[in-house]
Amino acid sequence: MSKDFVSGPAEHIDALRSEMMHRGLDAFILPRFDAHQGEYIAPHDRRLAYITGFTGSAGMAIVTQNIVAVFVDGRYRLQLVNECAGTLFAHHHLFDDPPELWLGKIADQGWRVGYDPMHVPPAWFDRFKAACDLIKAQLIAQPDNPVDAVWPDQPAPPAALVEEFPLQFAGKNCSLKCNELLAHLKQSQADFIVDTQPDNIAWFLNVRGGDVDFNPMPHSFLLVSRAGRITWFVNAEKLRDFDQSSLPENVEILPQEAFLSTLGVRILPGQKVLIDPHFTPVAVRQTIEKVGAHPAPELGYLTLTKAKKNPSEIEGLRACHIEDGIAWTEFSAWLVQEVPLRAASGNPLSEREAEDKILEMRQARPGFLNESFNSISAAACNAAMCHYATTPDRNAQILPENPYLLDSGGQYETGTTDATRSFSFGQRPKGYDRAYTAVFKAFHALATLRFPKGTQGHHIDAICRRPLWDLGLDYDHGTGHGVGHRLSVHEHPQRIGKPTNVVDLTPAQVLSIEPGYYEAEQYGIRIENLFYIVLEQDGFMSFRNLTLIPIQTDMLIMDDLTVPEKTWLKSYNSEVARVLGPNLSERAQAWLLNQLD
Amino acid sequence: MSKDFVSGPAEHIDALRSEMMHRGLDAFILPRFDAHQGEYIAPHDRRLAYITGFTGSAGMAIVTQNIVAVFVDGRYRLQLVNECAGTLFAHHHLFDDPPELWLGKIADQGWRVGYDPMHVPPAWFDRFKAACDLIKAQLIAQPDNPVDAVWPDQPAPPAALVEEFPLQFAGKNCSLKCNELLAHLKQSQADFIVDTQPDNIAWFLNVRGGDVDFNPMPHSFLLVSRAGRITWFVNAEKLRDFDQSSLPENVEILPQEAFLSTLGVRILPGQKVLIDPHFTPVAVRQTIEKVGAHPAPELGYLTLTKAKKNPSEIEGLRACHIEDGIAWTEFSAWLVQEVPLRAASGNPLSEREAEDKILEMRQARPGFLNESFNSISAAACNAAMCHYATTPDRNAQILPENPYLLDSGGQYETGTTDATRSFSFGQRPKGYDRAYTAVFKAFHALATLRFPKGTQGHHIDAICRRPLWDLGLDYDHGTGHGVGHRLSVHEHPQRIGKPTNVVDLTPAQVLSIEPGYYEAEQYGIRIENLFYIVLEQDGFMSFRNLTLIPIQTDMLIMDDLTVPEKTWLKSYNSEVARVLGPNLSERAQAWLLNQLD
Repeated sequence: MSKDFVSGPAEHIDALRSEMMHRGLDAFILPRFDAHQGEYIAPHDRRLAYITGFTGSAGMAIVTQNIVAVFVDGRYRLQLVNECAGTLFAHHHLFDDPPELWLGKIADQGWRVGYDPMHVPPAWFDRFKAACDLIKAQLIAQPDNPVDAVWPDQPAPPAALVEEFPLQFAGKNCSLKCNELLAHLKQSQADFIVDTQPDNIAWFLNVRGGDVDFNPMPHSFLLVSRAGRITWFVNAEKLRDFDQSSLPENVEILPQEAFLSTLGVRILPGQKVLIDPHFTPVAVRQTIEKVGAHPAPELGYLTLTKAKKNPSEIEGLRACHIEDGIAWTEFSAWLVQEVPLRAASGNPLSEREAEDKILEMRQARPGFLNESFNSISAAACNAAMCHYATTPDRNAQILPENPYLLDSGGQYETGTTDATRSFSFGQRPKGYDRAYTAVFKAFHALATLRFPKGTQGHHIDAICRRPLWDLGLDYDHGTGHGVGHRLSVHEHPQRIGKPTNVVDLTPAQVLSIEPGYYEAEQYGIRIENLFYIVLEQDGFMSFRNLTLIPIQTDMLIMDDLTVPEKTWLKSYNSEVARVLGPNLSERAQAWLLNQLD
Repeated sequence: MSKDFVSGPAEHIDALRSEMMHRGLDAFILPRFDAHQGEYIAPHDRRLAYITGFTGSAGMAIVTQNIVAVFVDGRYRLQLVNECAGTLFAHHHLFDDPPELWLGKIADQGWRVGYDPMHVPPAWFDRFKAACDLIKAQLIAQPDNPVDAVWPDQPAPPAALVEEFPLQFAGKNCSLKCNELLAHLKQSQADFIVDTQPDNIAWFLNVRGGDVDFNPMPHSFLLVSRAGRITWFVNAEKLRDFDQSSLPENVEILPQEAFLSTLGVRILPGQKVLIDPHFTPVAVRQTIEKVGAHPAPELGYLTLTKAKKNPSEIEGLRACHIEDGIAWTEFSAWLVQEVPLRAASGNPLSEREAEDKILEMRQARPGFLNESFNSISAAACNAAMCHYATTPDRNAQILPENPYLLDSGGQYETGTTDATRSFSFGQRPKGYDRAYTAVFKAFHALATLRFPKGTQGHHIDAICRRPLWDLGLDYDHGTGHGVGHRLSVHEHPQRIGKPTNVVDLTPAQVLSIEPGYYEAEQYGIRIENLFYIVLEQDGFMSFRNLTLIPIQTDMLIMDDLTVPEKTWLKSYNSEVARVLGPNLSERAQAWLLNQLD
């Protein structure tokens, strides 16, 4: 049972079932998504957690009168078992045992299956539609969400203040971005583009906000016509301190609630409207179809354009990585000193003290705003859980005999950071050094790759894994994700991992490289830097490093490293020392120099 | 204009257009496929070549009254320009500029678009259907192929004799294979499975034939019911010398022509029929739908099962690779001796003499039957064309100052071989050694890979390319293909390459590894061995080598090789010497020993 709500899932499920009966529904599809289909949601939108108790960042439930089936991916299998225990629930794999097939099996002919069309993207809707058609069940759009109807103390929708994002950091003004977008509409012979992803819209309008944790952007929607009329659907209360004259004249502002109805009026029969089928509520497509216009699915234009950082954005990222590197290096030197001292004093350092410390170190840096995600501060076996987070009652000691892992990042005025380092304090479990050496080799293998035009993330994932595979090891997560520019720390569309990702890796995309190894109940290792892609003279591409944090060398089996690996490591730590050195404390300088031996 | 036909494409196109008018067709879809959707076709089925003159192994035309649009992939771009010159033709890329979109652009509302439902698989049909629906054009199935109607001297359908494939080589009798198939039908809750791929059927029934060049199997179709009734559609004339009592009792034989009509009678309304949507004629799906049954698309069960070689098949493959290795090593030693001698004598060796020689060397080996594909015997710049083939008037000299490439394989009683070696005779163009060394590194990188369960071909392709990418080089073809067991040298479904291949690499699959480098107008390099996948003790998989042909070392820049690379090479050539040595001529032994220094 989730401790975040006053009452528990059992009562909430009962209430939802009554509401479903009242609405004549045999089943209700309850995704974790809000109307923006992102990874982070506001308390207002935690409907899946409210009903099921499951608090992971991705998943879906189908509620019937008999069972609540919860579907999650491999990352959340164990968490699901803990959070959704008991006979109320059935547990399924989101991809191997997908919800629409499950529904097709358990539903009877004539069933009425409800869904909120603002929370289901077209790609998912089509899967449910096909499954329901097969068994002659009906999918029924709900005009308002039935969970909201039974959630008495539901928090209000987020309304954080919007602010202008200065041109000096954004690098390109909204009018220029708009001209390029209009050229794309013209070329696509489209009349409109709709975008519902808050980070795309914030990037396009050069604004920032704070409607969900860690992600500095407002919830909003966007409609742009081929004639250049930009309609931004954002609630007025968020614009209290915002100077609207910073927007181009062709931007009009309407409330979020007016989004669908405005689409229905503005879009005319026969017109073509670009939408991203994976990240747009199906309600948008349905509205377009209802007026007799044509929804044209495409991978979001703004998603693709935003991913290719402009020179000012790259410059800003470089700048904030220097500040972040100083914070990290200060933290690292403090940590390796503090852990043995505190242990000797009988009052060992805790994981939460460590995550508070990296925040404190960052707060001392100019331009720092806040964290870019919830730090993973994990000692010993806690680091074997890739998505570990401390809580007031889950806060282990960091002892000298165990390794420690910190995955942490910041939002700065000029950009976003995300890095992971693994630390040792002299003593390590058997096998740790062998695995740490392999993780370093994996990191090095991908960081030094050159690749041709047309390469996609799934093509190069195994380049990173091979040093681990050589030893019979592997890691059960992706190898790299896109990163926003003072936006989401996980940004579409490019990604390095096993699943096919059809987006070409192209110059100026930013990606993490973060191989790891996790020995259950013992330890976890990960090394993560951010890189941006550069075009080389011969037409091949390579990764250029952004992150400036020393890589601790104590745990490396030097005899297992090749000459290029040793040379790269020394050169990396030397570069960190060269750039950060003058601004480091004596303690941090001394620790950094130790990594150069 | 193709020289294989008496008259030329212009006349043939005219005749087809008249026939189309007669049938009321505005366009006709003309794939290169026959009814079995394979890579090799019989002279009877060379309709695309007869009409357009294009002789490549994959492609499609759409013929209208104004234009003949020919669609080919990147391999055949240049060949298309040569073979389909002039204003009769438009040239397009089969994937980047696909035929259904082209048709959608040029066709008018109400167009009648003809196609032969035996030559278009469902996956292609659905693409054309969607395009035609959009513009309100009609797709019209032709009861007989209009090209056949205008091809007076069309060769007869192939009718090579069928023979039993002995159990000692096949390793599993048809009844056992059938029991496993029936278990699959039961598990899939299916009533029938249809298979139209001749190699699947030959494997299933333990028969061989010869309806198309190099591929020892008869054209035929297969229907198996859940009750175990096996219907083999194969023309009686092919069975003249075949002892039908070698087949299980539950096999009945009907003529190929009775295929569709029998499906229409046997399959009952509501029944479920498994078909492979990529390799089955859409006529099969249409027949199933017409009787009110349900076609259930799945990656062919026989395709997947056949790919996993049984122990006898592996043993046979190992045995024939010893014979093939002896032939290759004798050839290699002969070649490096003969090329300088013949050049000095003023009568240089020709490419055709070399390909005749490897055939002669193979013919001396026990169990050899015939070639498994048309050898690529390519001197100097000819080797830069990946699909080069000699002809009586295209037959270059092999001179000591140029490198040479041979890609060649055999059908043996016990299996199929396919290998490529690059040869040098002392002198080499600038850059050749650097590229040859990189190709060897590429080959070695993949040959030594260990990989976990769930790995697919597109995941590991870049592992092979990286040593070339490091130098700014690459090759524009796949890295590896499946290979049949005395069946097709290119066998589905597993493949190593850039395009996503959703088939897991699993133990006992056979694959080639064949990186290369091609410097246009100068030279081509490729090293190719066959491997089968083995499961290691820790659950990871690796490639085990089948091919036993020395790798020539003269062109390697030894200083650029790592210690593991040098060790592997020495060990490989030593193993070849150990296994083949006793059966080699003195000349071949001496040459082999030279590669061990």
